[in-house]
This record gives sequence, C-alpha cells and structure tokens, in this order.
Amino acid sequence: MPVLVMKFGGTSVATLDRIKRVAKRVGVEVAKGYDVIVIVSAMSGKTNELVGWVNETSPLYDAREYDAVVSSGENVTAGLMALTLQEMDIPARSWQGWQVPVLTTSAHASARIEDIPPENIMAKFGEGMRVAVVAGFQGISPEGRITTLGRGGSDTTAVAFAAAFDAVRCDIYTDVDGVYTTDPRVSPKARKLDKIAFEEMLELASLGAKVLQTRSVELAMRYKVKLRVLSSFEEQSDEAGTLVCDEEEIMESNVVAGVAFSRDEAKMTLISVADRPGIASIIFGKLSDAGVNVDMIVQNISEEGRTDMTFSLPTDQVKRAEIAMEELKAEGGLNFGELDVDMDVAKVSVVGIGMRSQSGVAAKMFKVLSDEGVNIKVITTSEIKISVLIDRKYMELAVQALHDAFELEKAA
Amino acid sequence: MPVLVMKFGGTSVATLDRIKRVAKRVGVEVAKGYDVIVIVSAMSGKTNELVGWVNETSPLYDAREYDAVVSSGENVTAGLMALTLQEMDIPARSWQGWQVPVLTTSAHASARIEDIPPENIMAKFGEGMRVAVVAGFQGISPEGRITTLGRGGSDTTAVAFAAAFDAVRCDIYTDVDGVYTTDPRVSPKARKLDKIAFEEMLELASLGAKVLQTRSVELAMRYKVKLRVLSSFEEQSDEAGTLVCDEEEIMESNVVAGVAFSRDEAKMTLISVADRPGIASIIFGKLSDAGVNVDMIVQNISEEGRTDMTFSLPTDQVKRAEIAMEELKAEGGLNFGELDVDMDVAKVSVVGIGMRSQSGVAAKMFKVLSDEGVNIKVITTSEIKISVLIDRKYMELAVQALHDAFELEKAA
Repeated sequence: MPVLVMKFGGTSVATLDRIKRVAKRVGVEVAKGYDVIVIVSAMSGKTNELVGWVNETSPLYDAREYDAVVSSGENVTAGLMALTLQEMDIPARSWQGWQVPVLTTSAHASARIEDIPPENIMAKFGEGMRVAVVAGFQGISPEGRITTLGRGGSDTTAVAFAAAFDAVRCDIYTDVDGVYTTDPRVSPKARKLDKIAFEEMLELASLGAKVLQTRSVELAMRYKVKLRVLSSFEEQSDEAGTLVCDEEEIMESNVVAGVAFSRDEAKMTLISVADRPGIASIIFGKLSDAGVNVDMIVQNISEEGRTDMTFSLPTDQVKRAEIAMEELKAEGGLNFGELDVDMDVAKVSVVGIGMRSQSGVAAKMFKVLSDEGVNIKVITTSEIKISVLIDRKYMELAVQALHDAFELEKAA
Repeated sequence: MPVLVMKFGGTSVATLDRIKRVAKRVGVEVAKGYDVIVIVSAMSGKTNELVGWVNETSPLYDAREYDAVVSSGENVTAGLMALTLQEMDIPARSWQGWQVPVLTTSAHASARIEDIPPENIMAKFGEGMRVAVVAGFQGISPEGRITTLGRGGSDTTAVAFAAAFDAVRCDIYTDVDGVYTTDPRVSPKARKLDKIAFEEMLELASLGAKVLQTRSVELAMRYKVKLRVLSSFEEQSDEAGTLVCDEEEIMESNVVAGVAFSRDEAKMTLISVADRPGIASIIFGKLSDAGVNVDMIVQNISEEGRTDMTFSLPTDQVKRAEIAMEELKAEGGLNFGELDVDMDVAKVSVVGIGMRSQSGVAAKMFKVLSDEGVNIKVITTSEIKISVLIDRKYMELAVQALHDAFELEKAA
C-alpha cells in the first residue's frame, strides 16, 4: 500500500483531547488505503521543561546527556498516540528513534540523519500494522547513544521518512493553515498559496516566515518529497494547506510569490576602513568566530584608499559584534574610524522563481518604495529574491505597498 | 576497582536539589575507590502522571505501549543525575535499559530480568568512567521493545545489577532509615535492626512492611547479594541502615526479629460445605480465577460430612470473592449454607529465623494475647513465622504487647 507521512507539532498534541483529534485525522487517511507513518513532537511545553532542568543542572552540559533527557518528551507522545489509534481499532505501534533505527551523526543536540533503513517498519506494515507512530527529533549515533536533531527537528524527521519510504506525500500539520503571500497580520490582503516552489519556500523560511524548518525544506528539495503544510485545527480536504513542490509542478505562478520581512534587524557600518585585499575576510572571520550571523553586506566605493563597510545582523547580536570589532582594533588587526550602529531597521524582500525569466522586478520594487517615500539603506539581490533594508517604521507600509503592486492578492 | 550499587527511589530524586544531594552521596563512595552503578527511579509523581495519561487514553491499554510511555520517567532522572555528577567532576554517563542492555522477558508491565551482560558498562569503567547511572524499572524484550518490571521494579533492577557485576554491596536509599522490629508509629519502642536475614525480610515485606519489593529480596537471597536499606535524607556512615544478608552473617539474633501486621484484612467463612475430596481445589481455584489473593486458610473439623471453610483476603477484594462464590453456587459447582464475612480483622505476625531452633514461641505468643484479652480467630504457622487473625480494634495493643514480651527493644 502507498505510504503517507503525517507530522504533528507540539501544539497539535498538547493534550489527550488534541491527540484524539489528531488520531481521527490519521484514521481518515488510513481509510483511504494509505499505510501511515506519523511523526510526533513532544506535548507543547514538555521539551522546554526538560531543557530547563538540564540548564539548571549543568549550564555547560554534556550534549549526550542533554539528548538522553530531552528526547523523552517525544517518546511519551508516540506511545499515547499509538494507544489512541488502537482504541479506534487501527493497528498501530510506537517506534523510538533507536528502534527504527534513525541513524544519525554523533553531533549531539544538532545531529544529522544519515540513513533510515525502512525494513523494520515495512515488515510490520506487511503484517497488517497500518500506522507507525515515530518519535520525532531523535535518532541513534554510531556509538549507540541517543541523539537529537535540534529545535524543529521533527519536520526534518518527517521529510527524511518520506524520502526513505518513498511516500506519496509528507503532510506537516501545524498551527497555521498554509503559506501566505505575506504575514496576514501585516497585510490583510495576504492570500494563502496553493503551491509554492521549494526554492521560494527556502527564501521565505530563512527570512522569518517560520512555518517550516529550513533543513526540512532543503531535504525535501533534494529528494523531491512533496511537502504539504496545513492546519491541524481545521477540517481538511485533500486540497487544504499549501503544497511545497518542485517548480515544474507549478503550472502558472506570479512573478513574485510573496513578500517577506524581518523586524529585528540592525545595521552596522565600519567607517573609513583601509581598502586592501583580505580586509573583508578579517572582519567577517572575526564576526563569525564571535557567533554573529551577518546577513547583508555592502562595501561602498573607495576614496583615497579607504572605504566604508556596512552589514546587517540581528539586533540581539549587536553587543557581541561591537565587542568583536573593538577587540580587532585593539589587537591591531584592523584600523577604522567610527563604528556606526543603526538599531531601527527592518528587512523587506520579494521572493519568486518567476524573477529568473522576467526582468524589471527590482526596478518596480524600488519605484514602489520611492513612491511611498521610503528610503532604501542597503540592497542585496539573488536569483529569486530582492531584499532591502529600510527604517523600521516604514516596514508595514512597504510590505502592503509591495503586496498591492505585485497583485499578490490575486492567484496566477 | 570494586563495584558498588546504589539505588535511589522517587522521593530521593524528586527535585534538582535532591538529585544534587544524592550525587554528593555518590561522590563519597567514588572517593572511597568504588566504581559505582547508580539505579534511579522517576522523579516522584512523574510515573503516576504517565500512568494516568495511559489509563485515560486507553483503559484496556496495550502493555507494550504502556511500557514505552511509562519508562520515560526514569530516563529523565538518569540523564539529570549523570549531568549533576559531571558538574562535580566525576566521570559519569547515563544508560537506558536497552543500552546496557537489561535483557528481560516479553511480559510487558511485569517483565522479569533474564540477564544483564556487564561488558558494555565494564568497558567504560575501564576507560575511566566512575559512575554508570542506570534508568531503573526497565529493560528490553527479545523483540527489541521496551519493557518495565512493574511497580517497585527499581529495587529489583538494583539487586540484579549487583549480582551481574559481583558488587560488594547493594545500597537501597529510601525515605526510611532501615528496617524496624515493628512500625514505630504503632510501637514507640520499635528498634532499628542492624542486620536481618533474607528470609525474615521476605516475611516482613510480604506482610506489609513495605521497605523493599519482595522480588528484590528473593533475588538478593538467591545470588547472595548483600543488601543495605538506608535513608537518603540523613548523613550516612558505613554502618547506617539495615543490612539484609545471609543468616550466617548474623552472629547473634533474637528469636523473634520483628512483629509485622496488616490492617486491611477480611475473613470469609463458607458455612456447611460438603466435606469431600477436591472441594478446596474448587473453591480456591475459582477465587484465583477471580483474581482474589487468599492468604490464610483454615478448615474446621468435619461434622456429618459437612465442614466450614475459612480464609482471609484483602478487604478490597471481598466483593469480588462474594460474586465468585455466588457464581459457583449458581453453577451447581458448590453447595454451601451461608457466606459469613468479617470486615473488621487484622493480621499480626511474629517473624524470626531463631524459631527454627527454639520451641515455645507460638505458645508464648498465644499466652501474651490471651493475657490482654485478645481473641484469636485464625492461626497459621510457617517455619519462621506465626500469624494470627484478630479483631482490628486490638491490633495496636497486640503489636505492643508482643514487642514487649519478646523484648525486641533490646539488641541481641
């Protein structure tokens, strides 16, 4: 029988009643004839409780023990879900990561899945089991110890199972009903997308539209896993939610798929830096060592052998970046004038695979912002995305104006 | 290095602070030069929470899923304990049942340990690990599924590890500071015993002195594991608590080691049963099928081919027993007159291996009770125990009088 993977997050399994509701949803798919693999997270709040205990016990904890403790939340949900399905007369059993086994690297607390041999679960499907409930977010290392995949790792677990079992689809049930052209809280005209390409989803996810973990989308793209995002709190049809898929499967699409934004951005400028080879490597190497996630980088035109170097970063990493730059100066590694910090900026991006074949998107974006009197501070572009840094107070205005201008409220 | 096993129950690890206190206690033994195996229970309340969820989800649950869910409590404690020890610079790691592995039968929720291959843990001791923290109460079945040993199974886990690792001793830390001659709440003269023989401990445990799980004492007796019961809430010396050991190791002992009692007893009498071969088998077979735990049995002298059959049972099983007997009558399997039930009885027992060599203990016991005006309803005896059923209102009086008469407040 064809295999379907369904993944339910922490809020979807937060109580016994919700587990029951989710189980009914699984029953609908079983009735359609699928053998179902259900990936579950811990009941919401449980993982935080366990992480809190570990941090209190040992601030610089051994990640192997962290994994042994934190993985227990998913095990509880998996067992309870299997019992709930059995109560509905659906043959089901739970599987912990090591039982499947989900083979991972030894990078505890952020392990990567290396292989999921399907034989054990397939054998049980062959014996009449209809649902395998798998504890998400966990696996087993070559040393035989429990690993976890890092926060949000259950999405990755789900996609990896869909790939390993050649599933017809991987349905990610969450607390939103799909992927939108932008955040409906910012633009009331935001429209739910029926389909979105993997590449677009990746750009939207990494820009703060936190519906799916980035790694899970990358994995789905690599193995061509059809990924569907939908709400666990609404009645569902086969067409519900948003399908994340290969661009070939999207017949018609708008040039721009969506407008993304990120509110907590800061801009830093090193004024009057010597413009010589290797200087960028020194600056961004130091920032990387300090754990600063630099996003956009702009180098201004050089005058008399000196230049200004501007970059954006999350606001909560500004302090760390300042210390790193002052250190660099004190060590004599870098000579610069002032360090200018702007804490009140936001990033707005338009994303769409249609840009590849259609020119003029950037020009249109800049004109829309100009017409609204929004000053652009930094620009970066990629093949399917154009991002600008603007004053934060204009963020909502910019998002709404762009959403209107590219007519995202209308389907293609 | 010699191996020491230490077991801590749920109240001893109920909070992070208590885990820290317990870890210090482990550190003392490590400093003495022992390689230590620590067996932990779930933080108190956790197992009940998990059991509650399972029961609510599925009243007639699949015991395999019950085990998968319920075993997670111990895993959390094991990881937290390992982290706490590491914080104290003691090389430690946690082990879940399947990792050791603790090989058990497939009798889920009440599995029996079949073998504990010591190689994995011994290899780590060889590499410098000083403490193996093992999640108690759990193991793995031949089918590769998680099993639990049933309530109190962590005591059994501890003793099994002590046997498998040829440990110098198995210390069971609990919320009492040892085994007493009787319950101090009933007799203020109750004295803590320094040593007690396995056989005596077995009789005391099964009689309701619930310090150690009966199975763990049986196992310790079979493998000659020195078992020590002591409090995790007091400063400890090597002589603290009570040592449960082979009788040869007890140089001098009182004839009677202790007075045990059980409050929630009932007495049932089938009046005027036909006295013919096989009748006892019919009655007690039926009661066994109904899940009634019959304890004492007395058959009175036969008159005119009919007899009265009396037995004792826990008060909360009386209803079940009555239904079983009425069924038996209705089916025509048994003819009897009345069914007499006495809900207000208690059992009092004196226990001691010294009885084997010294006569007159029973006579002395009956005289003491007679002097106090206590009427004896049923008597049973074994090699090292004499039990009587009396009116419950006399229970405390009987315990105190027997404790005095056998001078249990004095050490041998």
